[in-house]
Amino acid sequence: MDQKEKKISKAIIQRLPRYYRYLGELMSIGVDRISSGDFSKLMGVTASQIRQDLNNFGGFGQQGYGYNVGNLYEEIGKILGIDRVHNIIVIGAGNFGKALAGYSDFEKRGFRIKALFDQDSEKVGKVYSGIETLPMERLKDYIKENNIEIAALTVPKDAAIELAVILKDTGIKGIWNFAHTDLEVPDSIVVENVHLSESIMRLSYNMKSRSEEA
Amino acid sequence: MDQKEKKISKAIIQRLPRYYRYLGELMSIGVDRISSGDFSKLMGVTASQIRQDLNNFGGFGQQGYGYNVGNLYEEIGKILGIDRVHNIIVIGAGNFGKALAGYSDFEKRGFRIKALFDQDSEKVGKVYSGIETLPMERLKDYIKENNIEIAALTVPKDAAIELAVILKDTGIKGIWNFAHTDLEVPDSIVVENVHLSESIMRLSYNMKSRSEEA
Repeated sequence: MDQKEKKISKAIIQRLPRYYRYLGELMSIGVDRISSGDFSKLMGVTASQIRQDLNNFGGFGQQGYGYNVGNLYEEIGKILGIDRVHNIIVIGAGNFGKALAGYSDFEKRGFRIKALFDQDSEKVGKVYSGIETLPMERLKDYIKENNIEIAALTVPKDAAIELAVILKDTGIKGIWNFAHTDLEVPDSIVVENVHLSESIMRLSYNMKSRSEEA
Repeated sequence: MDQKEKKISKAIIQRLPRYYRYLGELMSIGVDRISSGDFSKLMGVTASQIRQDLNNFGGFGQQGYGYNVGNLYEEIGKILGIDRVHNIIVIGAGNFGKALAGYSDFEKRGFRIKALFDQDSEKVGKVYSGIETLPMERLKDYIKENNIEIAALTVPKDAAIELAVILKDTGIKGIWNFAHTDLEVPDSIVVENVHLSESIMRLSYNMKSRSEEA
């Protein structure tokens, strides 16, 4: 990859998965080519914004042709790093953990949940959506033996902070953090936060602003 | 509110709930005052960025004093519209719905989940974390009779699209959308999306970029 890629803005990384989703939907209904104007309308983003975004990665449209849906889908998949399988574990076999285990959309995108982990001996051994719950004692070995790249943390805040320390030396590359806290990790680990409390506060803020405008 | 508030950028609205969370944590350990430098270090955001953000709403720090933690917490709460109770329903009593029902953090912030709804007659009548599951036939009346402002949708994509149409005329002010699709709603309704597939693709992208930098 060239230098350019390193400067890709956060906003583009917000938009790429959405492009990918819409392209997947177009494919599923048999659309194999779309004009840049139609794609722009569908996405609710200007055609020039789309062009600019894609130009960061080399550009994919052809003047007078538009976009080849399958091609673009595949290329964006490569950019996102989802052109191969990522092995995942979910730590915390509560409702959120079970929900992730049962979410077939992830598997479709190459994210394969291999095991759940929980410290509760009542839960250990239980199978949710075909995925077994293992004891925490097996965590480190399991990660190494099964080439696990991502750990999803669906545990309380304090447990997540402890786990971030434990995961440091396991070779884990990414933490998908559902706990309501920020995590300190070495540079070799990427954290993606899903902070639901912050999400609902944004909703509340936007509802308040909307009603004041009206 | 003055004109200024209308131009508040999306980035600030991303940061405010995080300020709020940290201020809450400071309060819980008995810190009632913090210098702007210490607050900046804690947040990992420059002091001038924090000042700028807060200035959008009138500004709250005092030269040479820093921030009064309780005050700022309360003021940001007001800005976010969480200085009062919001009644919520969750549509879809699957694992995600049950997880939301059991998430006590929301209640603490004034988001009160009043009921679950599901079309599956097996689930109707079941109580999860103290919250009853009601049949879809009662949805519209329940919203009106119980002053429900927010509907969380933890249902498949097609059901979410149908629900967005049904919710249009119920007086609902906000949709918290967990379905893997964008929703079309009238201006009177705000949608906050939690698109987990997009979140994990961002994680994948960032892992890929990080490994290429190394």
